Amino acid sequence: MSFIHDDFLLQSETSRRLYQTYAASEPILDYHSHLPPADIASNRRFNNLFEPWLEGDHYKWRAMRANGVPESHVTGNADPRDKFLTWARTVPYTLRNPLYHWTHLELKRYFGIDELLNENSAPSIWDRANEQLRSSSELTTQGILRKFKVRAVCTTDDPCDDLAHHRAVNSSASAGFRMYPTFRPDAALAVGQPEVFASWVARLQKSSNIEIHSFSHFLDALKQRHGHFHSVGGRLSDHGLTRCFANPCNDTQAGLIFSKARDGKAASAAEEEQFASNLMLFFGRLDAEKNWTKQLHLGALRNVNTRATQALGPNTGYDNIGDWPQAEALSRYFDLLEQENALPKTIIYNNNPIDNFVFSTAIGSFQDGKTPGKIQFGSGWWFLDQKEGIEWQLNALSNNGLFGRFVGMLTDSRSFMSFPRHEYFRRVLCNLLGSEIDGGELPRDEELVGATIRNICFANAKEYLALDLN
Amino acid sequence: MSFIHDDFLLQSETSRRLYQTYAASEPILDYHSHLPPADIASNRRFNNLFEPWLEGDHYKWRAMRANGVPESHVTGNADPRDKFLTWARTVPYTLRNPLYHWTHLELKRYFGIDELLNENSAPSIWDRANEQLRSSSELTTQGILRKFKVRAVCTTDDPCDDLAHHRAVNSSASAGFRMYPTFRPDAALAVGQPEVFASWVARLQKSSNIEIHSFSHFLDALKQRHGHFHSVGGRLSDHGLTRCFANPCNDTQAGLIFSKARDGKAASAAEEEQFASNLMLFFGRLDAEKNWTKQLHLGALRNVNTRATQALGPNTGYDNIGDWPQAEALSRYFDLLEQENALPKTIIYNNNPIDNFVFSTAIGSFQDGKTPGKIQFGSGWWFLDQKEGIEWQLNALSNNGLFGRFVGMLTDSRSFMSFPRHEYFRRVLCNLLGSEIDGGELPRDEELVGATIRNICFANAKEYLALDLN
Amino acid sequence: MSFIHDDFLLQSETSRRLYQTYAASEPILDYHSHLPPADIASNRRFNNLFEPWLEGDHYKWRAMRANGVPESHVTGNADPRDKFLTWARTVPYTLRNPLYHWTHLELKRYFGIDELLNENSAPSIWDRANEQLRSSSELTTQGILRKFKVRAVCTTDDPCDDLAHHRAVNSSASAGFRMYPTFRPDAALAVGQPEVFASWVARLQKSSNIEIHSFSHFLDALKQRHGHFHSVGGRLSDHGLTRCFANPCNDTQAGLIFSKARDGKAASAAEEEQFASNLMLFFGRLDAEKNWTKQLHLGALRNVNTRATQALGPNTGYDNIGDWPQAEALSRYFDLLEQENALPKTIIYNNNPIDNFVFSTAIGSFQDGKTPGKIQFGSGWWFLDQKEGIEWQLNALSNNGLFGRFVGMLTDSRSFMSFPRHEYFRRVLCNLLGSEIDGGELPRDEELVGATIRNICFANAKEYLALDLN
Repeated sequence: MSFIHDDFLLQSETSRRLYQTYAASEPILDYHSHLPPADIASNRRFNNLFEPWLEGDHYKWRAMRANGVPESHVTGNADPRDKFLTWARTVPYTLRNPLYHWTHLELKRYFGIDELLNENSAPSIWDRANEQLRSSSELTTQGILRKFKVRAVCTTDDPCDDLAHHRAVNSSASAGFRMYPTFRPDAALAVGQPEVFASWVARLQKSSNIEIHSFSHFLDALKQRHGHFHSVGGRLSDHGLTRCFANPCNDTQAGLIFSKARDGKAASAAEEEQFASNLMLFFGRLDAEKNWTKQLHLGALRNVNTRATQALGPNTGYDNIGDWPQAEALSRYFDLLEQENALPKTIIYNNNPIDNFVFSTAIGSFQDGKTPGKIQFGSGWWFLDQKEGIEWQLNALSNNGLFGRFVGMLTDSRSFMSFPRHEYFRRVLCNLLGSEIDGGELPRDEELVGATIRNICFANAKEYLALDLN
Repeated sequence: MSFIHDDFLLQSETSRRLYQTYAASEPILDYHSHLPPADIASNRRFNNLFEPWLEGDHYKWRAMRANGVPESHVTGNADPRDKFLTWARTVPYTLRNPLYHWTHLELKRYFGIDELLNENSAPSIWDRANEQLRSSSELTTQGILRKFKVRAVCTTDDPCDDLAHHRAVNSSASAGFRMYPTFRPDAALAVGQPEVFASWVARLQKSSNIEIHSFSHFLDALKQRHGHFHSVGGRLSDHGLTRCFANPCNDTQAGLIFSKARDGKAASAAEEEQFASNLMLFFGRLDAEKNWTKQLHLGALRNVNTRATQALGPNTGYDNIGDWPQAEALSRYFDLLEQENALPKTIIYNNNPIDNFVFSTAIGSFQDGKTPGKIQFGSGWWFLDQKEGIEWQLNALSNNGLFGRFVGMLTDSRSFMSFPRHEYFRRVLCNLLGSEIDGGELPRDEELVGATIRNICFANAKEYLALDLN
Repeated sequence: MSFIHDDFLLQSETSRRLYQTYAASEPILDYHSHLPPADIASNRRFNNLFEPWLEGDHYKWRAMRANGVPESHVTGNADPRDKFLTWARTVPYTLRNPLYHWTHLELKRYFGIDELLNENSAPSIWDRANEQLRSSSELTTQGILRKFKVRAVCTTDDPCDDLAHHRAVNSSASAGFRMYPTFRPDAALAVGQPEVFASWVARLQKSSNIEIHSFSHFLDALKQRHGHFHSVGGRLSDHGLTRCFANPCNDTQAGLIFSKARDGKAASAAEEEQFASNLMLFFGRLDAEKNWTKQLHLGALRNVNTRATQALGPNTGYDNIGDWPQAEALSRYFDLLEQENALPKTIIYNNNPIDNFVFSTAIGSFQDGKTPGKIQFGSGWWFLDQKEGIEWQLNALSNNGLFGRFVGMLTDSRSFMSFPRHEYFRRVLCNLLGSEIDGGELPRDEELVGATIRNICFANAKEYLALDLN
């Protein structure tokens, strides 16, 4: 029997029936990803398996480095085929790592390839996959989105982006899906790095067409961009933070910090926190006003290897899980917005499994009695998006919140090969629920459980996010 | 088959046999609860299912808010039946939350009702349950305690309480159980809120009949109340703390902080910690002198939603799990008492599962070689009193301590409907042990394992707490 | 059936086959232990079961104290047989504690004894075990090492040790195994305890034969000892730290702190951290130069019970799990060494399970693309070396790193009775993998999985540590 068979990860009859009946055919709403909008708009075709699979995947890079592969064959100048063969030699050492599952699930779903990838099978797999990539209409970027029944994909975008690619896709008659931007203004908080900050403010001025002479103009320009994202159909924002910032200064003080940073003087750590806190409240208000959903990605310790970061830049696979306290600042951030009746729908993602229970309770104190599941604990993120991490998030949410209102899975991926993550999640979900029915922890009421599955796969996200899917 | 059948949560023959043979018939010693003494003393009868089930249950309130139910139907003025129907509509969304288990276990054990609660079944369940509440002698507060074979229940009480209800119950020939108070002097630490503190000191003066002119009188009055609790049969104290306070000032400094707070000036955070540390040592000595058991409930982040707390008051379902470091202060508190040979029997409860292993080792360094299991790691608390939390606590305790000396379950509840929590715990316990016997992790020696189960259900708590059960 | 049967902990046919085929016969490389070199060099014979089992085992001491056993029968002056009988009475209360498994596994493997240890079986077990200890050539220290196919054992040694015992064993024709020292310079960081520090520097001066007039001489002497360890075949260092020290001062400042401590004045906490950070970088360079493997044991909160520590000394069973943040300092320590191209092979061990995921990602950012698995996350340590802790470490490592490159188990023990810990680990490992094959999470490719098992049992450690095993 092949490794990726129909019942992959479904360990009981009940689980199989739940998956096949309720989950398998649901469409996908991929509401958080890092896919490049240009590649989608241009309907990019890939020349070989290296491009969609290895070119930008820092999970694979880390595995290769840990396996003793030199950087030339990771991110360096080696031939794509050689890099692929080196990756194939690493694969057997990734047993029990999610890469082992993803690799074979992706080979099967995209190319119908059933063999285990290793040194011996690699050359033939390379040839067969490349042949399909070059010829199949299902394997362009748009083809892939349609093949996986993606109703909408949300990209992650700088507020200064003009969103031309999004507009192009959404005005196309043939795309068959929607592409929406996500407002991610991390650069607006960077008063600790004045050159970065000043140059970004210059971009913002240009894109907003608002002259930024003061902090007040700065806010105006941000609001203008937020409105622009809204006009293109965007209904989500996103922030990547170590911890919540919830220690705000007033606008006058924020203005002084703003001017200082713009003039090339770095804010102190305390000022940076105050400024960021002030802005995070501002962003909260913007989202609340327009009924957007705010996403907070908390807890990553990024770019820890100075030598590698200098050589390769950020986001090249040198990030860890952090272990900051999260509970007080997270609650305080919510509380400050709630006090001014400006707490938007929010999804919080954590990067350290020890925060699962804190997050699962933090959401429960800020539900508003209007929007079901208004504050959401998001699916297992980054170092937690494997079977165990998915199960932990589901269990923590269930134990302290409403599993039945969960908005479910997202790829959070930079790769067009990642859409089977939704299938993966659904199999884990149905396996869990089936085993609980069999163990008597859930009632043997498959209609009830099945409705919940359907909701988590698609309907909850559709209703909650209120994106236009037509 | 009904959801709550005889083998509910018992997933193997061995587990079933262990539960039926050793656990099911054991009496209950509910040594920590928040039941209202007056309701027990008066043998209150309930008018309808709303009163014992929804009126005071912040678990259900949180679930309803998360499901989009407006506050009018949670804690507000809506009709009790409408609130119940709204709760019933929420129940299907609580799948996988402990509320789903508790709800159906309680309907079965109190009313013999076997249906799943939802919008359709709700009206009939409401009528049938109410009929029984109004007519059955088993469903008054005292009837319930007898029905569940509760040998003693410990309430949680302010040191100023006169304990008349406890004395009334314990002098009653017909009660069939004992009710003991627990000394919970949290208000004595509140020097950071001078109005609260001063008014409480005034109450203390009155109840103790000791004029409080100084810190020394304050301690005298506290000691008098402790003695009063002892005279009524109380043998437990309890403290709700974010973290242990273990950074004491001396009595002179404590006296200054005391006077300042009493005069309406708030202590600083540092002073508050020093004062609380001083008092926690004092309370430790009181308990040690009288061979009481001290309980520490650590790690809750309370009343985080300012708007809701202002509208509804504290303890209305706006609390989270906190994530403070616990290890050093906890050890230091124990160590300071141990150094003066004044460490009482102590049970520590944690609110964040990440502290399970810290707690399971912290107890092991302060066992005294006299009282078996002198320092206890208490059962899964609050956000952790579901199947997974119960199992985690049992496993952490077992991995680093003596499971065989564990004093077991308590309801910690404000509701008379919560006594099946003991059954729930016992099923989880027996399911775990049965599966471990079947898996070869425990010897197939059911006498040995069964004796351990019996001890954990009742005998260990009886021996350890030394309450008068006659 | 006896408790410790052939399939102990192996819960499926697949698991049994994996264990018997791939794991059972692998030799042992016990690369971290606290065995006394003198006992090995002298081929010590034990007079009775108390000596190898209870004399130095603080796990058992903690269990006995928690069971109400007075110190006279733990570490005190009671008769060895009485102490053993007291331990036997405690054993039934250790159900679910790893001691229950270890106890019976050790009785079986060393003495062929199959009964459960308790009050009744104890006298006969005492007699039978003692008889064998006194007569069997397999039960001397060297006999034990050969019996368990230990190819090399690494002890943990003060830099001042002359390593005569190691040289004696390794020049013996008959030993049948190698014994290597591990360089553990914790005393070199103790500038906060000037008497301890000064007397240790005096020992260092003597052992190195280098006159230490300055910090620079101090470093020279440490380097001389490191070289001496190398000449005897040592290839590992070890450090026991609460947290990583990664906040270094320069050598001039370190010199001032050094002189101050040597003159009897305690360094401040800040100075101690700076000094320790400086030295930890120095030690990193020493290891990197000679291609050694550095071990970091992080997170223990030691000697928390002042009264007991004063009475019995350190390392007598009064230690807890700590809960310091680890992520930032750990990454920074690695980063500082990596920036000067002086990061050695390193194994990090954690004492708190909440750090598992942090550790599993921290290693991934410092792999160098040359040495496979260069930075390792070590096996479950101390309070985590039971079945659950072993599985958690394996899972965390697998989820975020390369399980296939893991260097596997070590005893970390002070007892010659602990070698079955390797068997225990292997059973847990094979049970996990077998169940994952059966559940479809791993491919049913027993050759692939079996090769991985073999590597983790022995070959990975052999290749990685580069100890001379001939």
